Amino acid sequence: MKGELAQYFQEHRSRHLAELVEFLRIPSVSTLSAHRPDMLAAAHWVAEQLSRFGMEAVRLLETAGHPAVYGEWLHAPGRPTILIYGHYDVQPPDPLEKWVSPPFEPDFRENRIYARGVSDDKGPLFQALKAVEALMVLHGELPLNVKFLFEGEEEVGSPNLPPLVAAHRDLLAADLVVSADGAMWRASEPSITLSGRGMTALEVDLTTARIDLHSGRHGGAVPNALHAMAELIASLHDKDGRVAVAGFYSQVRELPVEERAAIAALPFNEDEYRQSLGLPALHGEPGYTTLERQWTRPTLDVVGMWGGFQGEGRKTVIPCEAHAKITCRLVADQNPDAVAALVAEHLERNVPDGARISVRRFPGGSLPYDMPADQPVVKIAAEVLSEVMGGQAVLVRMGGTLPAAEVFQTLLGAYTLFFSFSTADEQYHAPNEFFRLERFDAGLRAWAHLLLKLGESPMTNT
Amino acid sequence: MKGELAQYFQEHRSRHLAELVEFLRIPSVSTLSAHRPDMLAAAHWVAEQLSRFGMEAVRLLETAGHPAVYGEWLHAPGRPTILIYGHYDVQPPDPLEKWVSPPFEPDFRENRIYARGVSDDKGPLFQALKAVEALMVLHGELPLNVKFLFEGEEEVGSPNLPPLVAAHRDLLAADLVVSADGAMWRASEPSITLSGRGMTALEVDLTTARIDLHSGRHGGAVPNALHAMAELIASLHDKDGRVAVAGFYSQVRELPVEERAAIAALPFNEDEYRQSLGLPALHGEPGYTTLERQWTRPTLDVVGMWGGFQGEGRKTVIPCEAHAKITCRLVADQNPDAVAALVAEHLERNVPDGARISVRRFPGGSLPYDMPADQPVVKIAAEVLSEVMGGQAVLVRMGGTLPAAEVFQTLLGAYTLFFSFSTADEQYHAPNEFFRLERFDAGLRAWAHLLLKLGESPMTNT
Repeated sequence: MKGELAQYFQEHRSRHLAELVEFLRIPSVSTLSAHRPDMLAAAHWVAEQLSRFGMEAVRLLETAGHPAVYGEWLHAPGRPTILIYGHYDVQPPDPLEKWVSPPFEPDFRENRIYARGVSDDKGPLFQALKAVEALMVLHGELPLNVKFLFEGEEEVGSPNLPPLVAAHRDLLAADLVVSADGAMWRASEPSITLSGRGMTALEVDLTTARIDLHSGRHGGAVPNALHAMAELIASLHDKDGRVAVAGFYSQVRELPVEERAAIAALPFNEDEYRQSLGLPALHGEPGYTTLERQWTRPTLDVVGMWGGFQGEGRKTVIPCEAHAKITCRLVADQNPDAVAALVAEHLERNVPDGARISVRRFPGGSLPYDMPADQPVVKIAAEVLSEVMGGQAVLVRMGGTLPAAEVFQTLLGAYTLFFSFSTADEQYHAPNEFFRLERFDAGLRAWAHLLLKLGESPMTNT
Repeated sequence: MKGELAQYFQEHRSRHLAELVEFLRIPSVSTLSAHRPDMLAAAHWVAEQLSRFGMEAVRLLETAGHPAVYGEWLHAPGRPTILIYGHYDVQPPDPLEKWVSPPFEPDFRENRIYARGVSDDKGPLFQALKAVEALMVLHGELPLNVKFLFEGEEEVGSPNLPPLVAAHRDLLAADLVVSADGAMWRASEPSITLSGRGMTALEVDLTTARIDLHSGRHGGAVPNALHAMAELIASLHDKDGRVAVAGFYSQVRELPVEERAAIAALPFNEDEYRQSLGLPALHGEPGYTTLERQWTRPTLDVVGMWGGFQGEGRKTVIPCEAHAKITCRLVADQNPDAVAALVAEHLERNVPDGARISVRRFPGGSLPYDMPADQPVVKIAAEVLSEVMGGQAVLVRMGGTLPAAEVFQTLLGAYTLFFSFSTADEQYHAPNEFFRLERFDAGLRAWAHLLLKLGESPMTNT
């Protein structure tokens, strides 16, 4: 059976890669309204794939934003039902000038595929499709009941996923969610991710005068929006790197000693990590290791800040506007609404004299997510990863946010097994995003093996 | 004579305005290399005007940057020689979306002309041209010797003016410079400007990691270029609004008591000023009035600051780059090189952990400029302004920078009389720059009267 699968994936490799390239060429950028037609094209591309290998009830589920793609195969009575999750939308590609090859023209080099979204999440989503296709082609049936839900708004924080899942609770009901999203920790060993951070995001618009003012005529006597914004942003952290927003840490569940010990036991070299990023120094909340900071502590990061003249040369103005976009990563038991309110309050309280601000929240905050390490699927997944990739899978946590996991837990009562074969260093959300071909190949087999093993497991509503 | 001039300007008014519109349509933006052809077109337009009304030796004087336009009429032996100065380059027009009418399509409304550069300095330059033209047409000669020097780099800090003037010292020699640049203080009364602030400008590039990093995977453990830039920029001022750069004020000549008293005696309402700018509060160095801050104290203003994602929506990155453009206005006896070095030193010393910076100076720093109030031309100009505009001209200072005045003083040994009919509230360097038609008309007559009066004056090398 496993030899047969390995042979199948080898024989169909060039077709699979050609199909993936086709998928990657669609610039399905969910954050930009100009890409709405591309979003629809990508959704239809996925739906068409599902239909092609015998999935049933395939359709787009409409939302207030971009649609999700649904499909199912439910002909394994008495066997578990899984919901396969992933997303077909991608991050914006800018800054374009930093890409070696254009973001939507996939390029094969160094045994990798380079393209926007190849690692997050089109490559991994595609692996799930092709694993199910392989089982259908080889056996004419699946070893368990499968549903698919591929959303188009992960990169904007999945604002419409909760109402969608709530509205289709029966349709989507499953014993377990298996997510094609949620990259592995790193390239050196397989890993299983037990938790993800939540998120909330805000935008601040700051204004001073009615118009930009001449820096000669007015300079020295009027507030400067950029000075005010710099002061405001600088006030968000203390000198040591702690978030200085009052109450920011008050809902954070402190890490038990044994969990800190488990993290400390993972082989991880902070200095190599620092060097790999080209950083003169790491920087973060005092009292925690780098992995603790990334996995178990909340953050506040300004992701964009701008105002005044950015062109060539100089312009002697005192800018009257400045803008900043802020995101926070949250850990249990922080709540996105509560944290956003605290940050907004801090900003309002710290507005420098002569400036006014308006703070807006982005839709789509997410709660943090946690799965206990003793869940049976964790053991099953670890066995599959060892079989296919060799070595021992390590249990890790994720600094990133997968809003879907928390939504499925709350609304479907199902845990999410993260089963993605992208790696967290693959420059997703940055120029030159890539996907390792080695993990592309391994993932196809691993998905097929996982489905076979889950089909044999007694798991129902773990 | 004066009646004759008034009638002449009235009769030729529509032609004059049509010609000015033609001049304003040329987008001669000196800061942007893409506009190089437009710069040349504007220079040729001015040269062609000079030739048309009988100026001689008209030509472009080449520089390392944009050329200057020269012309002369030297047939008044025994009479004084003046050098008429102005600039044909303009500021960039962005942000374009804030213009009511397009910046290079002049629009007449509210008894004003709206266009980029109409107030700074094409309108005022054009007035000098047309006044000389009027005298030539009416009398066939001028009452004194006149030279013209119109440069194309005022908006980039006149970096090539000093070598140009040094190289053409004899050609440009004059008893007095009369500048068509240097706006009047305000619309309520005529004014004569005795001093201008100097300037120096820098750009800071700050980097952290090699690439932008995913804010989930890395957030909390790595430096954020925007946080570092905000901290760095915030460090440039203390909480009260003083520049916090060590040594910044050490070369500032303190204002004598009588000058502070003269400034305090000027009718000026700080609250009206604040309201006219739509500001919730004024802001500046403690211990000085608004006019003192604008005219007699040095400043440091960030004119542009940016990094990270500025598009629609959000992008979950930790930016690895941030940029800022800084300009300082200087007063006697500050030196642009020395101040730039102090600011650069401050920046280097205050770089937050995990960041690196590189600081570049913009070429073209300017020394501050001062003319004693008892110079005879001040009295002559005041009489002309009273004749033409009514009321009493007040003596003021200028917060802005006219590098040319200091260059002429140093290299030609001549003071500069600022004789511009633009007003400092005309939104130059900002969207919707305009020029009052009333001052357009008054300025034509005033220039002609000034030339007649200077021709009769005993002034030689004042």
